[in-house]
Amino acid sequence: MTTQAESAYDALVDHWREQALVASCQELLVWDELTRLPDGAMEYRGRQIAYLAGKHHQLATDPRIGEWLDLAERSPLAADPLSDTAVNLREARRQYDRLMRLPRALVEELARLVTAAQHEWKLAREVDDFRRFQPWLARMVLRKREEALCLSTSSEPYDAMLGEYETGFSTADVSALFAALARELPALLVEVLALQTRARRPARPALLRREYAPERQREFCSAMAATLGFDLAHGAIGTSIHPFTSLLGPGDCRIALRFCPRDLREGIFGSLHEIGHALYDQGLPPEHYGTPLGEPASLSIHESQGRLWENAVGKSLGFWQHFLPQLARLFPVEMGDASADDVWRAVNFVEPSLNRVRADDVTYNLHVLIRFELERALLTGDLPVADLPAAWNERYQAHLGMTPQGPREGCLQDGHWAAGMFGYFPTYTIGNLAAAQLLTQAERDLGPTSEQFARGDFATLRTWLSSQVFRHGKRFSTAELVRRTTGQALDYQPLLDGLRARHRELWQ
Amino acid sequence: MTTQAESAYDALVDHWREQALVASCQELLVWDELTRLPDGAMEYRGRQIAYLAGKHHQLATDPRIGEWLDLAERSPLAADPLSDTAVNLREARRQYDRLMRLPRALVEELARLVTAAQHEWKLAREVDDFRRFQPWLARMVLRKREEALCLSTSSEPYDAMLGEYETGFSTADVSALFAALARELPALLVEVLALQTRARRPARPALLRREYAPERQREFCSAMAATLGFDLAHGAIGTSIHPFTSLLGPGDCRIALRFCPRDLREGIFGSLHEIGHALYDQGLPPEHYGTPLGEPASLSIHESQGRLWENAVGKSLGFWQHFLPQLARLFPVEMGDASADDVWRAVNFVEPSLNRVRADDVTYNLHVLIRFELERALLTGDLPVADLPAAWNERYQAHLGMTPQGPREGCLQDGHWAAGMFGYFPTYTIGNLAAAQLLTQAERDLGPTSEQFARGDFATLRTWLSSQVFRHGKRFSTAELVRRTTGQALDYQPLLDGLRARHRELWQ
Repeated sequence: MTTQAESAYDALVDHWREQALVASCQELLVWDELTRLPDGAMEYRGRQIAYLAGKHHQLATDPRIGEWLDLAERSPLAADPLSDTAVNLREARRQYDRLMRLPRALVEELARLVTAAQHEWKLAREVDDFRRFQPWLARMVLRKREEALCLSTSSEPYDAMLGEYETGFSTADVSALFAALARELPALLVEVLALQTRARRPARPALLRREYAPERQREFCSAMAATLGFDLAHGAIGTSIHPFTSLLGPGDCRIALRFCPRDLREGIFGSLHEIGHALYDQGLPPEHYGTPLGEPASLSIHESQGRLWENAVGKSLGFWQHFLPQLARLFPVEMGDASADDVWRAVNFVEPSLNRVRADDVTYNLHVLIRFELERALLTGDLPVADLPAAWNERYQAHLGMTPQGPREGCLQDGHWAAGMFGYFPTYTIGNLAAAQLLTQAERDLGPTSEQFARGDFATLRTWLSSQVFRHGKRFSTAELVRRTTGQALDYQPLLDGLRARHRELWQ
Repeated sequence: MTTQAESAYDALVDHWREQALVASCQELLVWDELTRLPDGAMEYRGRQIAYLAGKHHQLATDPRIGEWLDLAERSPLAADPLSDTAVNLREARRQYDRLMRLPRALVEELARLVTAAQHEWKLAREVDDFRRFQPWLARMVLRKREEALCLSTSSEPYDAMLGEYETGFSTADVSALFAALARELPALLVEVLALQTRARRPARPALLRREYAPERQREFCSAMAATLGFDLAHGAIGTSIHPFTSLLGPGDCRIALRFCPRDLREGIFGSLHEIGHALYDQGLPPEHYGTPLGEPASLSIHESQGRLWENAVGKSLGFWQHFLPQLARLFPVEMGDASADDVWRAVNFVEPSLNRVRADDVTYNLHVLIRFELERALLTGDLPVADLPAAWNERYQAHLGMTPQGPREGCLQDGHWAAGMFGYFPTYTIGNLAAAQLLTQAERDLGPTSEQFARGDFATLRTWLSSQVFRHGKRFSTAELVRRTTGQALDYQPLLDGLRARHRELWQ
């Protein structure tokens, strides 16, 4: 006999699956927009996406959800907190309550503002003029403060922003992490730069900036994706200006890549990053698609997978011992004089820069730290919007020893704030920490991974990740997943230890 | 002051635009399915499409449409039958009444049956066994008869089937057209074959069956599309197993092409056909998108555009005088020994075959005629489903002098019946007739088009088509459009005259 609670739960599942169906159509509209939409069709695409977004919001705020949740939460379905049903109920409750706290007028106003602000941000960046973007950023900050007031009772508006992307972290937690990194990273950076300078065999980063035909880079990276385990029967590879990964439905994970003729590192490591994301998406349990158990644990854990394949895999010696012959076949002239060791050194070369996306893995988290401090101060009001460029430049000088020439390579570099994504940046760093901890544990369990990679064995690591991370969907939070897998709390030390060990091995 | 009728009309327009928005999302799902969907995602794609189809059907059968139509039709908005408002009301009324006559249970049953029958048709074709498909076809015929009973009071069920695709033609009209073609085409075919046999310079069709790399064929056809006027700022070119054209939204017309290494004719003429369709779609008035005035006049007129560019343009001497140098640059070895005259003869070579899609333009309408006679007899019951293969083979022997070896190259060749598309085939022939009449008139107005093509001028013809056909949307029916443009009723004589004249010029 089906109880009332079970019926309510079944109704919820059906409702989630309908929401997922609408969302999956939206995902396709966005994928297509970014990979092949003709310019003349942009405006209508905006209307299509807004229409489906409206339908999705209508479904997600259906008051019956509240009634179904009330019934199911009070039943045995919610008794064991790690059971499928309890996990789905917990996450659905979080999403529903969040949505119900936001007034419809604010949601619509923010959607309009995001569209306009992104447009203005692009124009401002093109003409390298912050003042053009300033009024839009000011409006955005006001609305995000309003949003924070609706979402949380904390006196720190940034708490609510973090909660949008990552549960279980307060501003104080994140501050403490970044404070530790701010203390430790500069010393590590100095040590690595000194090691590089004194290296017996110096790095040849110019090797990666020869003329590499994009079409052959694509061929290499497509084959590499298949070797690493990306399943083309349940995925596809496209092209876009900014690389990204999108799960369009169960059995349909797509990665969009970009290749530049004179920057092999950007093409290959951008691809590795997206492949990492895609392996996670393809490893989620398809039978749970449309319910929280079929979704990634968190943005941070998703990012950890991109970073793990980009850095722990792609920057290992074994990886290049395996892949260099294939690369050299495609680029016999350009790669003819390079050994696996040469490429390994070149891809690991550390060099402070002004650009987050292209940063090496020693300086990367300094870029994130700067954004975290600034966006938090913007929200509290400690930093007036007009002072952002100066504050940005000051911090780059302090942390990386360089000052941007203008806002294009400074505070107009990333589009997150124009998109209303305050609180998103920390997930990058939390993901880096988690990646380092996961890799450390993987090597404890599996032995040295670099040797496996040298034999072309990427399945051992992938299978381990699948059993530790992919298959659990949203069952565990970021912190729980890390603790459960590694026996340790989330921590910055393994990241620093790993970087130090790799660079000592590289340059001594 | 806005009248009640005007308010009702405005509400209708808003409602149409919402339907169009949903339909456009569906179009993208289908385009993506046919051009890049991974195999593993097929099943979910079916669910996405069915979901949006359900939403679309719900909108299209909203009873408020009937109320709005009633109000607007009795007002001055409908007074002038060729005004924008009257045309939109006329077409909306037709669509609405048709949908309201179909019981929901039948619509759903047909949708399920189409999915299953298409699947079974593919399997039956693979194993070359009609009996496997027979029960599904029998079920389909039953349902289509039911549908005909709902849609029309005619004693001839085929009338309702025709009305699905083309208004203003009765079964008797179409029968008369095909009877005339059955009388005239065999004599023309014999004349052309005799001419070819006696030609002083024989055709070299083998020229088109050398090894042509698909990637270079694609390069040629993409450049050709741009030269003919396909606008890539409002369109894109993809790849699929069966070439097709799809209007995904205003400013977003896409063509999917296919290239075979050893069949240049198929690649280039398939592309020309789709480019013809696409030029029409891109020429529809975008400001009317979502309303009947922004839609093509009819399937036949759409087909006429595909056929016009495929045959009247692509099989002219001038076309090859212009394009051969470009083709020869891409295929210097394969095309090195061919003159424009050689290619012109090769692409026009007539040869009866068993395959409709690959048929030359003299025999093409005989293939359609056979399908028309058979599908009509299936619906009346004069032809039992079990006897279809024998009847098919008999007619191929009678009209084309050949008998298929099995159903794969016989009655399982086309997927139309599995898709429930009875009454669709005649639009191919009506389109061919219309194309010939349009070209005859164009040459009266513009002078010999082949000479324009030789100069690379395709804009003169395109502009003429735009003013005569494209810009009118659904204002005129097929017959009205032909009469208005050419001063003549729809007729088969210009097609026969044109074919005879071209082949006499070619082979004498």
